[in-house]
Amino acid sequence: MKLPEKTIERISQYRRLLYESRAQGQSHVRSHQLAERIGGTATQVRRDLMLLECSCGSKKGYPVDRLLSKIAQLLDIPAGANVAVVGIGNLGRALLAFFSMSGPSLNVTAAFDRDSSKVGRVLNGCRCYGMEDLERILAEQAIRTVMVAVPTGEAQGVVDRLAACGVRGILNFAPVSLRVPPGVFVERIDMTVALEKVAFFARQASSEEHDEA
Amino acid sequence: MKLPEKTIERISQYRRLLYESRAQGQSHVRSHQLAERIGGTATQVRRDLMLLECSCGSKKGYPVDRLLSKIAQLLDIPAGANVAVVGIGNLGRALLAFFSMSGPSLNVTAAFDRDSSKVGRVLNGCRCYGMEDLERILAEQAIRTVMVAVPTGEAQGVVDRLAACGVRGILNFAPVSLRVPPGVFVERIDMTVALEKVAFFARQASSEEHDEA
Repeated sequence: MKLPEKTIERISQYRRLLYESRAQGQSHVRSHQLAERIGGTATQVRRDLMLLECSCGSKKGYPVDRLLSKIAQLLDIPAGANVAVVGIGNLGRALLAFFSMSGPSLNVTAAFDRDSSKVGRVLNGCRCYGMEDLERILAEQAIRTVMVAVPTGEAQGVVDRLAACGVRGILNFAPVSLRVPPGVFVERIDMTVALEKVAFFARQASSEEHDEA
Repeated sequence: MKLPEKTIERISQYRRLLYESRAQGQSHVRSHQLAERIGGTATQVRRDLMLLECSCGSKKGYPVDRLLSKIAQLLDIPAGANVAVVGIGNLGRALLAFFSMSGPSLNVTAAFDRDSSKVGRVLNGCRCYGMEDLERILAEQAIRTVMVAVPTGEAQGVVDRLAACGVRGILNFAPVSLRVPPGVFVERIDMTVALEKVAFFARQASSEEHDEA
């Protein structure tokens, strides 16, 4: 199934909300409830859920368990997908800590760093390997998805190696645009840029309030 | 100066790249070099730099130090802006670790959690307070920018309190769309959604390769 990026994002968001609804004892959820939580429209939610071939909406809304299993069929590999992190600095360790707590569908199973003092350590249940073992471990663990948290200057070299050994999805935390061959999907998250932007607009709003006062 | 979000993002990215250029001993940088690194065009870079009133481009390119000081004038408060984190679970601690290493223009100076066992602890140089002290500490430290890393169900309540006590910029890591009054800027980062999306497209690319083989 060919689905646009934004659709996949929303379906992933629905899943988080559905887990919460289930935890609160709700058996059904309505499209407008999901829409409100993600800041979209009920029409869009219904269209997305139709893509899941969940013709299961009723007067009571959509059954939470049925939707969750349809979403899992779309997004998850039955056995769970293995994921690696390259770069175990501050950010890489933060990612290991964060994703070690996430659901069973994505397992961070390997970490890599060029600093030999980190090799062999186990961080949040995940073993750290040297960069010389990158290709071997990724092949052994059938890893196709990697988070890159190395310094900017090293990111492109790392990504070239990843693409060459069969990695097809990269979540890039380095503040640099990466060149990848066709067929490799890259998503970038830059937390520093996000925080600077928020701080800029916060300062601007505060100074406008002072001007008005 | 009224600047669009995307422009602020790019200027923040330029700064990161300029720091690196300076660290490598470069005194000047050309627009096409910056463009290539962020995946944009040289024309756009030159237009952005014109907004900085940096009429300093020459045959050698733009002087790195001069550009950096112009960017600091735009983005930074001279004394540095104080920032808080609410929610010191796994993600909140990761944010503290990450941003404690960033530059001096944004200082994470306060952390908050409702878990009383965390109150009084100092994490990455940052003191943790109870939620009952939120308004008082934010006022004392003149904090206008806050990162929200609480569980989804608590995010809206926290944000209501933040907006009521003068916070004007929120970086939201909870997977939920937040309602805020006019004048409050919200940016959302959802790392789980990003990783699930990357994993989905990685799996799709891998299965297409198998089909072709």
